[in-house]
Amino acid sequence: MPELRRDPVTGSWVVMATERARRPASFREQPGASAVCPFCYGNEGMTPPEVLAFRPAGSTPDTPGWRVRVVPNKYPAFGAGGPPTLYCADMFCHRHATGAHEVVIHSPDHEKDLALLPRSQVEAVLRAYRERYRAACAVSQVENVAIIINHGRSAGASIEHPHSQIFASPFVPPLVRKRLDGARRYREAHGRCVYCEMLVQESMKGDRLVTRSEDFAAFVPYAARFPFEVWIVPTRHEAHFERISARERTGFAAVLQRVLLAYHRAFDNPPFNLSLQTAPCREAVDASFHWHVEMAPKFSIQAGFELGGGTMINVTLPDEAARFLRDFAES
Amino acid sequence: MPELRRDPVTGSWVVMATERARRPASFREQPGASAVCPFCYGNEGMTPPEVLAFRPAGSTPDTPGWRVRVVPNKYPAFGAGGPPTLYCADMFCHRHATGAHEVVIHSPDHEKDLALLPRSQVEAVLRAYRERYRAACAVSQVENVAIIINHGRSAGASIEHPHSQIFASPFVPPLVRKRLDGARRYREAHGRCVYCEMLVQESMKGDRLVTRSEDFAAFVPYAARFPFEVWIVPTRHEAHFERISARERTGFAAVLQRVLLAYHRAFDNPPFNLSLQTAPCREAVDASFHWHVEMAPKFSIQAGFELGGGTMINVTLPDEAARFLRDFAES
Repeated sequence: MPELRRDPVTGSWVVMATERARRPASFREQPGASAVCPFCYGNEGMTPPEVLAFRPAGSTPDTPGWRVRVVPNKYPAFGAGGPPTLYCADMFCHRHATGAHEVVIHSPDHEKDLALLPRSQVEAVLRAYRERYRAACAVSQVENVAIIINHGRSAGASIEHPHSQIFASPFVPPLVRKRLDGARRYREAHGRCVYCEMLVQESMKGDRLVTRSEDFAAFVPYAARFPFEVWIVPTRHEAHFERISARERTGFAAVLQRVLLAYHRAFDNPPFNLSLQTAPCREAVDASFHWHVEMAPKFSIQAGFELGGGTMINVTLPDEAARFLRDFAES
Repeated sequence: MPELRRDPVTGSWVVMATERARRPASFREQPGASAVCPFCYGNEGMTPPEVLAFRPAGSTPDTPGWRVRVVPNKYPAFGAGGPPTLYCADMFCHRHATGAHEVVIHSPDHEKDLALLPRSQVEAVLRAYRERYRAACAVSQVENVAIIINHGRSAGASIEHPHSQIFASPFVPPLVRKRLDGARRYREAHGRCVYCEMLVQESMKGDRLVTRSEDFAAFVPYAARFPFEVWIVPTRHEAHFERISARERTGFAAVLQRVLLAYHRAFDNPPFNLSLQTAPCREAVDASFHWHVEMAPKFSIQAGFELGGGTMINVTLPDEAARFLRDFAES
């Protein structure tokens, strides 16, 4: 059972992932790639039993034939069970890392990721997100659900076969809190949603736009933290990703693929990180928050200045990055 | 001149380091190592003119013979000049990244880092830190000075020759603010310094201690964010690093070397990041803050979950990490 420890100074939670704990001596070796892929057809027995799969009606769970398959992470950062009790000894407090940590296997294809898969496959992945987001939030102790993609070893993917991860945590992570607070303050000060306003500004000027459709805009944000960072924002104000319509899901899949394809073409299948920012499970943020995606190729290293102070240094001007990506985003 | 852009949602500043800006197409190539080291004797002309050097009296600046040499970073994240004015166009605000960004070259030795250099050399580096910290804070627009080490390419060092970096910024970075706020709250609630209390707790139990001396304790913090993270904390309460006595500087150099040597022996000269956390230039935090060092080998990748939410996952239990490092820290 993973454990949450609270930093006595900052109050931030740190996940001690004991299930995936590496013995100290193992850090001297390079982790090797496993010969057999646990996410390919025929190896379903290598993962925990599936919690969701899009597969032919009547087919047997945990056998081949699925289109998208969701399984618990074998080495979870958050796990089922455990009371919400806070245990403290003097200034040191911990609690069970109650929640869930799941893997969404994008398709049976070991090679092709979302950029190159058929549109309908991307939509199926998005449907899996929605279903598992809802299931995760239904657990009373879960406060927030993070949906992320790590693509490529240097972006943190330990398994090559394309997949997403869903982290259901019993607290709202600090950067999520910062966005919620910032959006609420903007709404209080200006009477409108900060992301809606950003959509207006970015669309009017257009300098930082990468691609857009009726329902979505993809742009390099003004204060991008990473080279070629892109945000994909729905034009309709909505705090909750899981409330999008079927039409919006199709539109989202299309724009997401266009940006991923631009990365793929521009940088030859680069490592990247993506996170879907949606409302926490049980907070009233409908008026001020606006769900969206934040993504970036993994080109920069979080070094001493970033780790020690939390301020990012970006070596590529957002406006230039957008101009460069636009050329690759045109279909 | 580098620029600071404010994220319209979170309010966080991001440094746009235009001086070191990489052309978009350059991300497709691997950056190559330069053949000639700009930090070795004889190549002083490859860096901007030195702002401090410990060298024989009467010797010419920017020539060989120095023991420690401090130069402005050729590609600064913060630079001199520029008014403090905030420029806003609609919701997008920027200002000059006024401040300084310097490099402290640890010694003329291209190979040996602090772990293996003579004790007196480490003390000389610490004296350079103090001197440059004071000079940086003397600039009225500078609010905070971060002193950090990136060692090894995968920890973000672009030049191999061992060096530190000093970032003088016109704002207090968010994680520094978080520590200051947390320490102030603890002091208000408990009437004592949170780091002083931590020293008592860690010394009493001893499970997470790595090494200690009369004036300093080095331990793996209870809620360590990274495998083998170590904090070095002075036993005397003092918010300002630059106020330490000559005796304390010797003691600090000794404990710092012991921890670095433990890393070096345990992991065969691993990449690591180190940051010196000291009081900001002009805030009254003397009672609640306590200067210290936070350091960790670079074994983990900040991936989607960490970048999207700011919560860290540590795969090595702090207590086990400390036990492991202790064996290597004994001299």
